[in-house]
Amino acid sequence: KINVGIVGGTGYTGVELVRLLVRHPAVHIAALTSRTEAGTRVDAMFPSLRGLTDLKFTNNDANELANCQVVFFATPHGVAMKQARELVENGTKVIDLAADFRLQDTAEFEKWYGMPHSCPDLLAESVYGLPEINRAKIQAARIIGNPGCYPTTVQLGLLPLLEQQAPLIDPASLIIDAKSGVSGAGRKAEVSLLFSEASDSFKAYAVKGHRHHPEIAQGLKAMQSDTTHHQVFDKLTFVPHLVPMIRGMFSTIYVRLTEAGLATDLQSLFEKRYADEPFVDVMPAGSLPDTRSVRGSNHLRIALHRPNNGDLLVILVVQDNLVKGAAGQAVQNMNLMFGLPETLGLDVVPLMP
Amino acid sequence: KINVGIVGGTGYTGVELVRLLVRHPAVHIAALTSRTEAGTRVDAMFPSLRGLTDLKFTNNDANELANCQVVFFATPHGVAMKQARELVENGTKVIDLAADFRLQDTAEFEKWYGMPHSCPDLLAESVYGLPEINRAKIQAARIIGNPGCYPTTVQLGLLPLLEQQAPLIDPASLIIDAKSGVSGAGRKAEVSLLFSEASDSFKAYAVKGHRHHPEIAQGLKAMQSDTTHHQVFDKLTFVPHLVPMIRGMFSTIYVRLTEAGLATDLQSLFEKRYADEPFVDVMPAGSLPDTRSVRGSNHLRIALHRPNNGDLLVILVVQDNLVKGAAGQAVQNMNLMFGLPETLGLDVVPLMP
Amino acid sequence: KINVGIVGGTGYTGVELVRLLVRHPAVHIAALTSRTEAGTRVDAMFPSLRGLTDLKFTNNDANELANCQVVFFATPHGVAMKQARELVENGTKVIDLAADFRLQDTAEFEKWYGMPHSCPDLLAESVYGLPEINRAKIQAARIIGNPGCYPTTVQLGLLPLLEQQAPLIDPASLIIDAKSGVSGAGRKAEVSLLFSEASDSFKAYAVKGHRHHPEIAQGLKAMQSDTTHHQVFDKLTFVPHLVPMIRGMFSTIYVRLTEAGLATDLQSLFEKRYADEPFVDVMPAGSLPDTRSVRGSNHLRIALHRPNNGDLLVILVVQDNLVKGAAGQAVQNMNLMFGLPETLGLDVVPLMP
Amino acid sequence: KINVGIVGGTGYTGVELVRLLVRHPAVHIAALTSRTEAGTRVDAMFPSLRGLTDLKFTNNDANELANCQVVFFATPHGVAMKQARELVENGTKVIDLAADFRLQDTAEFEKWYGMPHSCPDLLAESVYGLPEINRAKIQAARIIGNPGCYPTTVQLGLLPLLEQQAPLIDPASLIIDAKSGVSGAGRKAEVSLLFSEASDSFKAYAVKGHRHHPEIAQGLKAMQSDTTHHQVFDKLTFVPHLVPMIRGMFSTIYVRLTEAGLATDLQSLFEKRYADEPFVDVMPAGSLPDTRSVRGSNHLRIALHRPNNGDLLVILVVQDNLVKGAAGQAVQNMNLMFGLPETLGLDVVPLMP
Repeated sequence: KINVGIVGGTGYTGVELVRLLVRHPAVHIAALTSRTEAGTRVDAMFPSLRGLTDLKFTNNDANELANCQVVFFATPHGVAMKQARELVENGTKVIDLAADFRLQDTAEFEKWYGMPHSCPDLLAESVYGLPEINRAKIQAARIIGNPGCYPTTVQLGLLPLLEQQAPLIDPASLIIDAKSGVSGAGRKAEVSLLFSEASDSFKAYAVKGHRHHPEIAQGLKAMQSDTTHHQVFDKLTFVPHLVPMIRGMFSTIYVRLTEAGLATDLQSLFEKRYADEPFVDVMPAGSLPDTRSVRGSNHLRIALHRPNNGDLLVILVVQDNLVKGAAGQAVQNMNLMFGLPETLGLDVVPLMP
Repeated sequence: KINVGIVGGTGYTGVELVRLLVRHPAVHIAALTSRTEAGTRVDAMFPSLRGLTDLKFTNNDANELANCQVVFFATPHGVAMKQARELVENGTKVIDLAADFRLQDTAEFEKWYGMPHSCPDLLAESVYGLPEINRAKIQAARIIGNPGCYPTTVQLGLLPLLEQQAPLIDPASLIIDAKSGVSGAGRKAEVSLLFSEASDSFKAYAVKGHRHHPEIAQGLKAMQSDTTHHQVFDKLTFVPHLVPMIRGMFSTIYVRLTEAGLATDLQSLFEKRYADEPFVDVMPAGSLPDTRSVRGSNHLRIALHRPNNGDLLVILVVQDNLVKGAAGQAVQNMNLMFGLPETLGLDVVPLMP
Repeated sequence: KINVGIVGGTGYTGVELVRLLVRHPAVHIAALTSRTEAGTRVDAMFPSLRGLTDLKFTNNDANELANCQVVFFATPHGVAMKQARELVENGTKVIDLAADFRLQDTAEFEKWYGMPHSCPDLLAESVYGLPEINRAKIQAARIIGNPGCYPTTVQLGLLPLLEQQAPLIDPASLIIDAKSGVSGAGRKAEVSLLFSEASDSFKAYAVKGHRHHPEIAQGLKAMQSDTTHHQVFDKLTFVPHLVPMIRGMFSTIYVRLTEAGLATDLQSLFEKRYADEPFVDVMPAGSLPDTRSVRGSNHLRIALHRPNNGDLLVILVVQDNLVKGAAGQAVQNMNLMFGLPETLGLDVVPLMP
Repeated sequence: KINVGIVGGTGYTGVELVRLLVRHPAVHIAALTSRTEAGTRVDAMFPSLRGLTDLKFTNNDANELANCQVVFFATPHGVAMKQARELVENGTKVIDLAADFRLQDTAEFEKWYGMPHSCPDLLAESVYGLPEINRAKIQAARIIGNPGCYPTTVQLGLLPLLEQQAPLIDPASLIIDAKSGVSGAGRKAEVSLLFSEASDSFKAYAVKGHRHHPEIAQGLKAMQSDTTHHQVFDKLTFVPHLVPMIRGMFSTIYVRLTEAGLATDLQSLFEKRYADEPFVDVMPAGSLPDTRSVRGSNHLRIALHRPNNGDLLVILVVQDNLVKGAAGQAVQNMNLMFGLPETLGLDVVPLMP
């Protein structure tokens, strides 16, 4: 069994990793760290795990992680980059669920995350962990930057269109109206995330700019060998909203089709592109996905619409923000890095209702 | 006191009318009808009204409504148009909260509502009850078509832009990503509206076409004396979504600014346009309204954003779908029709939290 | 108009006071304090109040409150008792929504609240602000200890039974299974109150002991001139639970009837007792109240059940924890203290749905 | 693999059976019936199952079920008893998730379910499917009456106390204050179960009497060989409440301890009784279980409290009403009936948050 470590086990992505890994047949959780909870049994903090593990939180120090073949960082931004070098030099692979290894442009990283990048060389060798795009690179990687939740939906929602030679869409027209459940904001004691504040209400947030914006732009650029439109992606419109639900992410993507796009069977294009992808589900044309259809699972579902058969394509994408949008994708990456079947340990049937 | 009748008192717009009218100082609820509940005390069905009224539901027949000076129809589409003639001929004013008097084009009505219009002449004289646009006409009207909930947010969100001579926006670029609480679907026993189906999930619906689409198009056309772009409005993009909350509506409106639009102080334009409107609140630039800020009240709030100072204007509009989006607006119309202060009986402070 | 001050205006009871007082016809809010938000407009923090007030938060100092005829303390426990003396000596009345003036036994206060009482003399003269029991005393009081939310439901649920000469119930059998919406815990940044923690789940809490326990016991004792059973009330069983809803409190009270109780028409007893109480609604026998029937209003509803006509009486009590359970009751007390109609400013129709 | 059939696949217990069985390693779902949806793919109705099954709903007729070794009835009451004889005579085992085989007293069945029992002989041989009590009998049974959700919590919460020779509790004092998520009411189009009715509110229901009452009484009697107190159980107090959450059941059980009970180490008693039970978790003394700790899993958790060290025992029991309270328990029974490991296919980690 692979010895894995989880740094930062008390947040939602951390405990979600435990949920998935505790019954992963090829994995042993060797270490689970938390600065604040060292010494506490994880099932004392999260009784949902009673009977499944005897693990205790430990401090985040090198000894604890020394035996691990892979370490997941479910930490605030900036932690993984500080520990990554020692780990990889000792032969431990690193999967960071924060943003330290997502943006290749360190200036962009510094601008959005307010700190300099401490290991640009490791960043340069790291791989952006979106398996549907980077599968081969992930298999060979030492360090994975696990994608953000919103960027996962947007990139997989647009990938079949953008990777074509002929431009099928007008990138300048791109508008992403995205909606997330509250768990996306993390397990932080903030007034705005209280039940009495966030329930029975709806709002937009970060309209001025969201950290996932540059990550989305970087991802979309990477799909196009032709760099003509690359600047356009920097100006894409991305408006996130907060939904009174625990888990779930819904992106409504609006984009104008070109003549070439109008002439293409897009449903077929998407179906073919994702035919062999175990976690991407292209629903029948005209479908209306709901977020609960992926609750707890690593699946992402896509449905295409062209209202009134016009030139506007509406792409609906749903995922569980904590699974395909975070911990599930990280496990999928781990499976690839260790030559395991990609779906191992990820056969959770969505919880409905 | 004005004797009012409410036809269809068991749905959400009906009971919301009762909530507002039962303490309206100039009104006496003389009749409240329900085919299925005739004879039942309204406070037996809705205990929230205990101590506030002794009213019983009656059958919907002419005698019951004969003494009313105004009758609200909180009924399914098609009911008001059957009873309106007799009422107005007897001097009773009619406010229809359904769609019978919203669409002036009877072909459109028939297409979207699946029934012929039974009184095109009354439709022609009826007034679309959006006070911010039609105040004078409403004051003189015998029949009001009370606006749909989504169309209220979209029209008030775009009115200051579209009523200008110089075109400030490119109408072909208009995208409305709208979100509604579940009460917008009415008090109907449908599986898809069950708590266990609709809570903790999010979805789009009616992407292929929604009945409010032609109403929005009609309203936007009416704002422009120049008919050049009228066809374009028929093709606007409108994608409604269902939010797991009881009340509340949030419209995120995306539209490209023209050169003239870019040169205009839009914040100031909106603030001036609505300076004297008691129920339209233009929030400070950059505000992020949430739906709970209008819970239970007749207010609609608007905030303007221009991400990255680009040419895309993002207009955020919130209202309570049952108040400004339905019953509250109907009471506002009644106040106008009877020469009462426009805000009378509508001084409800939003319930927060 | 009466000049009122509110100390601690950023919590849920504080902003609820503002909601009620901002349209109270006999009141002017002269001061609203907050240590952390001094200088901020209250409607910038709570946009639901936009257009209703220009008030800014100020520091909590004597000058700000000097002009007030009454000051509400919507603060943590221990604040009001520090400021009360100066206020009442200047002729300002005090209504404390925290616990400083609830428990007459200072040892009990110290045990449950972890601080000594700083003004036992003022405590001794203060009046427990449950109008249905202490109306006359409230009218004459300088200082009111506004009841806790749970104690209000329990005392009003048992009052008609306990104030009888003949013992109608066996006090040793008393079990209170109580349920509260999340706003009852206040507007505090705590992980356990986050949307993602508290929604879609249910739990008991404070089973070992809750601060409202001694307050309930004190209140029930006060109803009985015969002190025989007073010790028994100290051992009553009170188990609170947390419900995933914003507002609302539901107490299910179980108690065995004596022979005298079995021989009494309890429905009639309750109806007569509360016949003249404007905010206590005894529902018809067999009713099943829901908390939403009082959402936003100062009403408390009671329904009596005797399953299988046995000797166990089940009393169901609902209220809005922030209104009759806090701010509404405080306004009711203020009305009494100033000789105003008791219901003034409290004519809010419950928000349903 | 075992061929299983599910009759009534469109309700919540039906689709929950599919969720569990579709990845059960020893099972093949051979038939899934629905009168109304015959011909529809199950994943068209429930997109959460896309990619997991190609199954279509069929009519409920004998041919479809002929190949099944076991048939689950997730149907309204009265369906299973009509089909059971033909099935068992053909060697097919039957697990009924409705009430047809729960109550051995046919008069009680008729009284509570309003229909005569059509096969009293099969009822007599059927086994009540609570594995923690009837494991050996279940292994040998042809027909299982799968327990109701509330009765499962109450019986497992009281079992260690009642199966002792010495009476540890006073059965006359028993009060069960139970709370259920909305999915417990089924997937029925009823107004009272709508999102806008059931969310953000709390209520008691069926206070006059609930169908699970006689089932609880029967179960508790069966735990005691001494029949002295059997009549008392008929009069136990059981008050169910509706919680605004999808899944989850919480029973707060109050019972007076006898001298023998006071002298017993109850925590130890419970821990020993359930030490080998894979799905019953006795939490450490003083624990406060929440329903989300079992969301989606077959576990039931129990915590014991004695407030103030008095003679009242408070037993807190949580389960997922659709899993241990219905479909999960049914699969557990199937595993027993076919000699499979009892936990096979039930290794779902609770979904948290």
